[in-house]
Amino acid sequence: MSHQRMRVAILTIGNELISGRTQDTNTALIARMLHVRDWTVTAAVSVGDDEEKIKQALSFVMADADAVIVTGGLGPTADDITTAAVARAFHLALRSDAQVLAHLKAMWEKFRLTWTENNAKQALFPEGAEVIPNPVGTAAGFALRQEGRVITVIPGVPREVNRMLPEGVMPLLDRAFPEAGSQVVTRTIKTFGLSEASVDERLAGVDFAGAGVGVGFYPIFPENHVVLTVREKDEGAARKKLTWAEGEIVKRLEPYIIAYDQDTLEGAIGRLLTEKGLTLAVAESCTGGLLTDRLTDIPGSSAYLERGLVTYSDRSKIELLDVPETVIRQHGAVSEETTRLMAEGVRTRTGAALGLSMTGVAGPSGGSESKPVGTVYVALADAVQTVCRHYAFRWDRRRNKIMATQAALIMIKRYLTGDLEKG
Amino acid sequence: MSHQRMRVAILTIGNELISGRTQDTNTALIARMLHVRDWTVTAAVSVGDDEEKIKQALSFVMADADAVIVTGGLGPTADDITTAAVARAFHLALRSDAQVLAHLKAMWEKFRLTWTENNAKQALFPEGAEVIPNPVGTAAGFALRQEGRVITVIPGVPREVNRMLPEGVMPLLDRAFPEAGSQVVTRTIKTFGLSEASVDERLAGVDFAGAGVGVGFYPIFPENHVVLTVREKDEGAARKKLTWAEGEIVKRLEPYIIAYDQDTLEGAIGRLLTEKGLTLAVAESCTGGLLTDRLTDIPGSSAYLERGLVTYSDRSKIELLDVPETVIRQHGAVSEETTRLMAEGVRTRTGAALGLSMTGVAGPSGGSESKPVGTVYVALADAVQTVCRHYAFRWDRRRNKIMATQAALIMIKRYLTGDLEKG
Repeated sequence: MSHQRMRVAILTIGNELISGRTQDTNTALIARMLHVRDWTVTAAVSVGDDEEKIKQALSFVMADADAVIVTGGLGPTADDITTAAVARAFHLALRSDAQVLAHLKAMWEKFRLTWTENNAKQALFPEGAEVIPNPVGTAAGFALRQEGRVITVIPGVPREVNRMLPEGVMPLLDRAFPEAGSQVVTRTIKTFGLSEASVDERLAGVDFAGAGVGVGFYPIFPENHVVLTVREKDEGAARKKLTWAEGEIVKRLEPYIIAYDQDTLEGAIGRLLTEKGLTLAVAESCTGGLLTDRLTDIPGSSAYLERGLVTYSDRSKIELLDVPETVIRQHGAVSEETTRLMAEGVRTRTGAALGLSMTGVAGPSGGSESKPVGTVYVALADAVQTVCRHYAFRWDRRRNKIMATQAALIMIKRYLTGDLEKG
Repeated sequence: MSHQRMRVAILTIGNELISGRTQDTNTALIARMLHVRDWTVTAAVSVGDDEEKIKQALSFVMADADAVIVTGGLGPTADDITTAAVARAFHLALRSDAQVLAHLKAMWEKFRLTWTENNAKQALFPEGAEVIPNPVGTAAGFALRQEGRVITVIPGVPREVNRMLPEGVMPLLDRAFPEAGSQVVTRTIKTFGLSEASVDERLAGVDFAGAGVGVGFYPIFPENHVVLTVREKDEGAARKKLTWAEGEIVKRLEPYIIAYDQDTLEGAIGRLLTEKGLTLAVAESCTGGLLTDRLTDIPGSSAYLERGLVTYSDRSKIELLDVPETVIRQHGAVSEETTRLMAEGVRTRTGAALGLSMTGVAGPSGGSESKPVGTVYVALADAVQTVCRHYAFRWDRRRNKIMATQAALIMIKRYLTGDLEKG
């Protein structure tokens, strides 16, 4: 039983997974690797170290999968029962593999460890199994062919999965299902400023499915990512379809697109500043340093970020940014007037090419009728003029901080690409 | 069908989960909350937005669970089909809930959004369902009683799960299975500075299980949390056991304990500064604003955080903090000498009671033989003296930034509690 598009199930085993003690990262890792091949993940199941549950889960996932990738429960201790459970699920006896046993004993000798008989357990495999070597640990994995499916079993340690999956499991599946291989190309388009529903609505008229292009929406606060996937025998044909689909999306979402694929807003800003040889100084208030924190997540950002000031108090705005006390008294610390002067002040004081500033009310307290929680001003000053924008966010404190920094990053990016309307 | 120890299955739905695009964190979160009640997780299953797979998964997990917690697929877009799939699985019609619909329309009006008909979908529920309100989003959840089991369905957005699980789902399950309820008391002890293995080793001698106390370890970078759980018919007896267990842990881990339960390092520092009527000014370099970002996540932090300076450039250290250029030239920007002068400078300049400063090499580049990537200095100055510590972290850029801010927060907390050795 095999389809053009191979169907694979993931089964992760371990009490630590279902107690919430350990965050299962193997499923996402395996799913990503399968996705790149454009194979379908039918289901991902986690169960504890419990023979009955392992058997039930195997039987559930095998109902509509060509292959099952199992991780976890291959250690030497008594609670590791995966091998025995899998063997019994298919009524197979366990056999000791002489080569694996010799290898284990040699390792114990090399590291001058005392050999105890429970270690011999790691040389036991169901009869007929093919051993999958473990280059970074003691527990080897194995593969079985049963009922027309391939079942592969490897340890659950992420570091070992990282090696055994691409080096052992995937080549084995490629060999078992040669007809499933084809070229898959993907493109991620990152948008900001549109709700998921609006993105969906704007793209509703385009028949991506009919053209053989998969479209996925992934909200990653505060952004919405659109991921295109094309699968073809021929890479050129796949790229052509992808280019068409990307064009359709750009047409409909262009003003909201902030980055592609692995790129980020911070990364794009960093490149633009570097290209143009511009430096930036930042004065923030309500965001408390989050803006420079994001900018400095880019390696090498010290080349263009001259300094950042978290001017939380009125006094710091007066002393460090030359905002006149009368302006703060008359218009308030959170105001267009103060924010403009902060951007100009931080620019002038530092001699940076650009000054970026923000004030606002992050919440939960500090709001007023005229300036409710979520009120944010962002200003950007160059040598010629200062642009200021007002925003009204409606989230909690943390998300208001994130949205405010996002708005500021968008403003500077638009400025650098020439897309910021002056005012 | 109900056991003393309730058996619960978790079903997470979403194409993004089985494509590996999103790391499923809901399962671990739900499992932890069930574990704290001493309920058993029978299985955790993820499937895509696919009606047939949702039905199959529901039928699989319902075979041996008293309740199922379902997350994901409740959005307004066409690919969100969970409600319809669950309804059809139990042969139930969908009904629009007038109250939910009115609430949605009121929200749209309040935020001046254009109402589109696809939003009405979020007011549809299977007949007989009980609505679970969503205090932080638009998609309400629902609960059904079918075949003696309770099925609860909530959105998949982690922030919404965080609220709807304890406020909606858990109370509903408590009511549905009163015999599963007994008094469960828990205590979370947050530690920093010990590996998970070291925590485990230090606690190895204590027979918590024998005393009826559950112990869970949860590494949440950069902290390790120890969660104690006691389940008893009588709350007094439970609290007594918990107090004993906490005492045993405090004895063994005391210097590494930074907070309890919902409290955080930032929150504790905020309270201590407020109690003592002290103000703080911060000058950071390698952490790029992350330190003040963390401090300002505490509502009301403007009362004690006077300002924060991200002195990324040498010039900003000279201009804003009066660090003599010769010191930077002789010892380097990343040095004990510079860091001490920064702490003193930011304190003197601002008139704050305390000055906190940091310099370091976050990486990936910028390291040298004498000051490799991960080198960090933290200094704290009061009116009398300045304390400086050196750290050598070994993570990536982001984690080095997090570790550096953690070290600085620990330093100021120890100072405020009188536990900082002088030097």
